[in-house]
Amino acid sequence: MPSYKLYYFHSRGRAEIARWIFKLSGTEFEDIRYTHEEWLTKKENFPFRQLPVLEVTDDNGKTTVIPQSGAIFRYLGREFGYCGKDNLEMARTEFLCEQMMDGMMKLFITEQDEEKKKALVRQALEGPVSEGLKLLEGYVLDCGYFVSEKVSTADLAFAAGTEVLEMFDKNILDKTPKLKALNEKVMNIPEIKGWIAVRPKTQR
Amino acid sequence: MPSYKLYYFHSRGRAEIARWIFKLSGTEFEDIRYTHEEWLTKKENFPFRQLPVLEVTDDNGKTTVIPQSGAIFRYLGREFGYCGKDNLEMARTEFLCEQMMDGMMKLFITEQDEEKKKALVRQALEGPVSEGLKLLEGYVLDCGYFVSEKVSTADLAFAAGTEVLEMFDKNILDKTPKLKALNEKVMNIPEIKGWIAVRPKTQR
Repeated sequence: MPSYKLYYFHSRGRAEIARWIFKLSGTEFEDIRYTHEEWLTKKENFPFRQLPVLEVTDDNGKTTVIPQSGAIFRYLGREFGYCGKDNLEMARTEFLCEQMMDGMMKLFITEQDEEKKKALVRQALEGPVSEGLKLLEGYVLDCGYFVSEKVSTADLAFAAGTEVLEMFDKNILDKTPKLKALNEKVMNIPEIKGWIAVRPKTQR
Repeated sequence: MPSYKLYYFHSRGRAEIARWIFKLSGTEFEDIRYTHEEWLTKKENFPFRQLPVLEVTDDNGKTTVIPQSGAIFRYLGREFGYCGKDNLEMARTEFLCEQMMDGMMKLFITEQDEEKKKALVRQALEGPVSEGLKLLEGYVLDCGYFVSEKVSTADLAFAAGTEVLEMFDKNILDKTPKLKALNEKVMNIPEIKGWIAVRPKTQR
């Protein structure tokens, strides 16, 4: 069995989907979280000077270092069977994840003025984010998930993303009942529920 | 054999890597290119109202529609064997692609003032883009490619990205000789060279 170290900050952010996959699959991993100050002293040791980074060490002690959140959670998703059963299902899993990430990026607004920022966030929520949710609603299958009867990284990414969206608007899924049910289905998976109960409490 | 239709605009942009994979693998595809005016009349028929989109129709006539450039070229890369031979090589292929995309995004500057825009592009080229190239240089293997002796989507993405970088600075790879050689190696693959000679001439 390979051993895994996941490096990130004290937040859910771009590492949480990877943590969920570890929990779902019952795989041990070291959940290493840096403060901003610690990161500044460690940065130079990491490829591309960014986190998250996953270290995979095989039985022979050979370590592979994987940066980039998307590459990490897709690697883990394939490794533990959460990316669909064939290449077409894998493509569906991936395009749904990419689409969600694009949607989330609309909420990363760099405006300094707090009032202006609030207005821009509101615009994004009422415009592209709501539109995106309406379109995503059409991709929920009768089984309640996005890809198949088995939970996929697309379902996990949706529920992890919803945790962020609900910080802005608690009722964000009220107009998309299938997505709301999908989110509840994921959040009620015992391994996910168990992790959320014990994970470090962080703002994001 | 499935049949393939690739929908995009009259440009290389986010569809060119997919086109290269079709050419490399000797796979027929319909290379459908819309003008901006045509797109406005077609948009509502496409998932998420965005291009590129790949349509895959199997032998039974069942069509799967795949949006999102990354999902498209990874799907094709896996289908035709340009994503590495195992899950770890696939992860390496993917994180290198993601890293390059992040770098390219630094050059998408929305500033309206032409002079200011030029200065910001120059800053990006001399700062994060050059830094990124120096780090990428360390990932070129002795065989001359990023992942293995077989060309991968990471190598293709690099050469396609270099076509863009060279529009800004013809000598952009002069300080990274391994990347320069990798780029030439890809550009001299007969199928790629042949495609570049006959493909529609577009600015981007």
